[in-house]
Amino acid sequence: MDAAEFRRRGKEMVDYVADYLENIEERPVYPDLEPGYLRSLIPTEAPVEPENYDDIMKDVERVIMPGVTHWHSPKFFAYFPTGSSYPAMLADMLCGAIGCIGFSWAASPACTELETVMLDWLGKMLHLPECFIAGTHGLGGGVIQGTASEATLMSLLAARCKAVRRVQNFAPEKSEHDILSKLVAYTSEQAHCSVERASLIGGVLMKKVPTDNRYTIRTEMLRKMVEEDKAAGLIPFYFCATLGTTPSCAFDPIAELGPICNEENIWMHIDAAYAGSAFICPEFRPLLNGVEFADSFNFNPHKWLLINFDCSTMWVRNRADLIGAFKMEPLYLKHENQESGLVTDYRHWQIPLGRRFRSLKLWFVFRMYGLNGLQAHIRKQVALAKEFESLVRADKRFEICADVVMGLVCFRLKGSNELNQNLLKRITKSREIHLVPCQLSGSFVLRFAICARTTESCHIQQAWRHITQLTFELLQEGNH
Amino acid sequence: MDAAEFRRRGKEMVDYVADYLENIEERPVYPDLEPGYLRSLIPTEAPVEPENYDDIMKDVERVIMPGVTHWHSPKFFAYFPTGSSYPAMLADMLCGAIGCIGFSWAASPACTELETVMLDWLGKMLHLPECFIAGTHGLGGGVIQGTASEATLMSLLAARCKAVRRVQNFAPEKSEHDILSKLVAYTSEQAHCSVERASLIGGVLMKKVPTDNRYTIRTEMLRKMVEEDKAAGLIPFYFCATLGTTPSCAFDPIAELGPICNEENIWMHIDAAYAGSAFICPEFRPLLNGVEFADSFNFNPHKWLLINFDCSTMWVRNRADLIGAFKMEPLYLKHENQESGLVTDYRHWQIPLGRRFRSLKLWFVFRMYGLNGLQAHIRKQVALAKEFESLVRADKRFEICADVVMGLVCFRLKGSNELNQNLLKRITKSREIHLVPCQLSGSFVLRFAICARTTESCHIQQAWRHITQLTFELLQEGNH
Repeated sequence: MDAAEFRRRGKEMVDYVADYLENIEERPVYPDLEPGYLRSLIPTEAPVEPENYDDIMKDVERVIMPGVTHWHSPKFFAYFPTGSSYPAMLADMLCGAIGCIGFSWAASPACTELETVMLDWLGKMLHLPECFIAGTHGLGGGVIQGTASEATLMSLLAARCKAVRRVQNFAPEKSEHDILSKLVAYTSEQAHCSVERASLIGGVLMKKVPTDNRYTIRTEMLRKMVEEDKAAGLIPFYFCATLGTTPSCAFDPIAELGPICNEENIWMHIDAAYAGSAFICPEFRPLLNGVEFADSFNFNPHKWLLINFDCSTMWVRNRADLIGAFKMEPLYLKHENQESGLVTDYRHWQIPLGRRFRSLKLWFVFRMYGLNGLQAHIRKQVALAKEFESLVRADKRFEICADVVMGLVCFRLKGSNELNQNLLKRITKSREIHLVPCQLSGSFVLRFAICARTTESCHIQQAWRHITQLTFELLQEGNH
Repeated sequence: MDAAEFRRRGKEMVDYVADYLENIEERPVYPDLEPGYLRSLIPTEAPVEPENYDDIMKDVERVIMPGVTHWHSPKFFAYFPTGSSYPAMLADMLCGAIGCIGFSWAASPACTELETVMLDWLGKMLHLPECFIAGTHGLGGGVIQGTASEATLMSLLAARCKAVRRVQNFAPEKSEHDILSKLVAYTSEQAHCSVERASLIGGVLMKKVPTDNRYTIRTEMLRKMVEEDKAAGLIPFYFCATLGTTPSCAFDPIAELGPICNEENIWMHIDAAYAGSAFICPEFRPLLNGVEFADSFNFNPHKWLLINFDCSTMWVRNRADLIGAFKMEPLYLKHENQESGLVTDYRHWQIPLGRRFRSLKLWFVFRMYGLNGLQAHIRKQVALAKEFESLVRADKRFEICADVVMGLVCFRLKGSNELNQNLLKRITKSREIHLVPCQLSGSFVLRFAICARTTESCHIQQAWRHITQLTFELLQEGNH
């Protein structure tokens, strides 16, 4: 395919994309097929000779679309949102064309520099403390990771390295493995599974701190566990707080937890993967109070800030902590302008070496929406969640299971877990809307998350009518 | 921006992308600016109100392009290639529009299933042993990782977990940290820095095996080191072989090394990040002989197989080894069709939870090029490297520093390292072409890699004329 054909096919693809997104409601939101469906629809081997492009596009409809869960359908209320907007898609096209690999400043200066400045822009939108802003002389700064899982892992590894060095400063005779076997990390029992996974990768013990009836960490429990662990000869070194937990969007009290961490030399990382985007609105910003005690902070603009996946933004108080953990400098990656106030090599900040020019997506979206437009998007989706909450509350058969703070509503039928499992099965099978469950205090709970950018009040009303209709049928049958 | 405006702007962007790539030679391949250049060109904060799209595109030329290292310019010969083709870019547009997050089968069945089948297609193109093909009943199979760094890390973590379990089977009283402190991994002293980094992340000792005068691992040295380590009470558990090292594209003799690993219960991972693509050509496939001894194998179609970054393909002999290392199942990620012969949840195979629909790029490129077209691309670039090698060999002032097997030529001026450093400085400063150096046996060596898809013989000839002109000037001045 040469440039001339790309001009033609690219424009056709732009129309296909616009058609897909404009008419997405007409497709069933969740696919109706059995595992292994795809293999029988295409050849068992790659073609030897080139094929016709039209045949590929026909196969997109024949092979791919029937197997897609349509995350951008306004009937999709599962998991958390994943961002999508036209400006982000345009930026991604540009990113693909430039196709640079920004592992070092020299490998493409614009890729590194735009990222640093965009993370400053976004940090200021969130009113992050000055220490997290790179500016021209800051010790901290931001980086785009692929996912929150990677941000959590990087923070844990940096904390691990720092703790080992600190202990060895006092006790040089101790081996690294000796120290590692004594390290202990903490997180909420409601934290995302990737937090525990980070501790498994890092080979350190992680303890789950119990939560209260609002699913947030009990401060005194963290203090107690730290004291007990210290008394038992362990070394508390890392705490991952969550702002907006995955099951119920609960918020750990970081303003209370932070001082404990600071006193005890515990690295505090804040995982605000979903909720972080909302902190650009002054009314939600108080939930981030206490970030001034954190060593690192992360959230996913690719969830709720209209940026297409992947774009997980992470800030650190002291970038030397991240960089120092795993810095390596083979000759083929050295260049004249290394680490200074003005330049950084982002490969030291992350697990992968290579990286795409992802900051273009932030730049396009920030400029095409403006802060006002982004705030409006957040506020609209929170209002839709409140609207759904009201519908649930008005129906005595149902109960709300957790505070509705942002765009997630946890609800269930009053009654057994089995009853709720059966309701969810009917919802999934009907393919009219798509939800996933969670577990709260032993209860099987339905999660209703406002996801697609194009979700409107009518979709909320339709979804609720559908849920109550299925509930009616379920309860009717139960009565027989 | 609504769909109508996206249709217009998207088509403009398609033309911008085609214009950029058609005229890329007119831009200096390497930017001429100082660190920190970008910050002063744009505001210090995000705009409050939306801006005009035309202003953003103007800024792409004013702010971004002057700071881009043009990896797809036929004057770019640095690092290794990064893939780019029009079909891959079209597929990426589709991937962005669908915008699903494929962490589990249910989260978008097509995303998981196309990936499994594309990895089978590609595995067959490489004539991988049957055990690496998923099919409908296989125990192995393939996955798309972001980068080779992540593939290496995942293989090391899986091997670590397997080793700990094996030891604890015999000696249940041993603690995990006790065992971790005894584990030892091996790789070539020529291996990529990400391999050593994986061992730092995994918290295990890694030893570098010396290489011979062709920069490949000396088999008897690995055997000797393993014997000595076992005698010293250590537990050899992991070996990372390299096919196509970064400094000189050297190939470890895996057919000899593999049996040692199998005998000693050492997980053999093969990192063929760059060279792997060439194994689709029968004439290069013998270098992969011995893969039948490997537990995992990885290469980057996003380097040399015309796939835009990121797409690093990894195969494992036994997927349970990868999955078993870190499997976690919170309720919000469970679904009805979990791990069976037909379905897998790729989130267990990798560090991140989220993942893009990257297999679309493979599907589009395989079908638009066909195996023949892909082989032709590899062969053309190898021929260009041979052409450059001949030019170097014909000039008595220069020497070739390593076998030219694929698309990389390592060469230098006969003489001091300083002389060669000075030559490279002139090349970099002239911005006519772009190269990076490496170190081989203590010598400062210039690496000339065939990178852009559009590189032709004329570019090789021009590059050599330019290098010899700068050499002439350098030696002239040296004589005064």
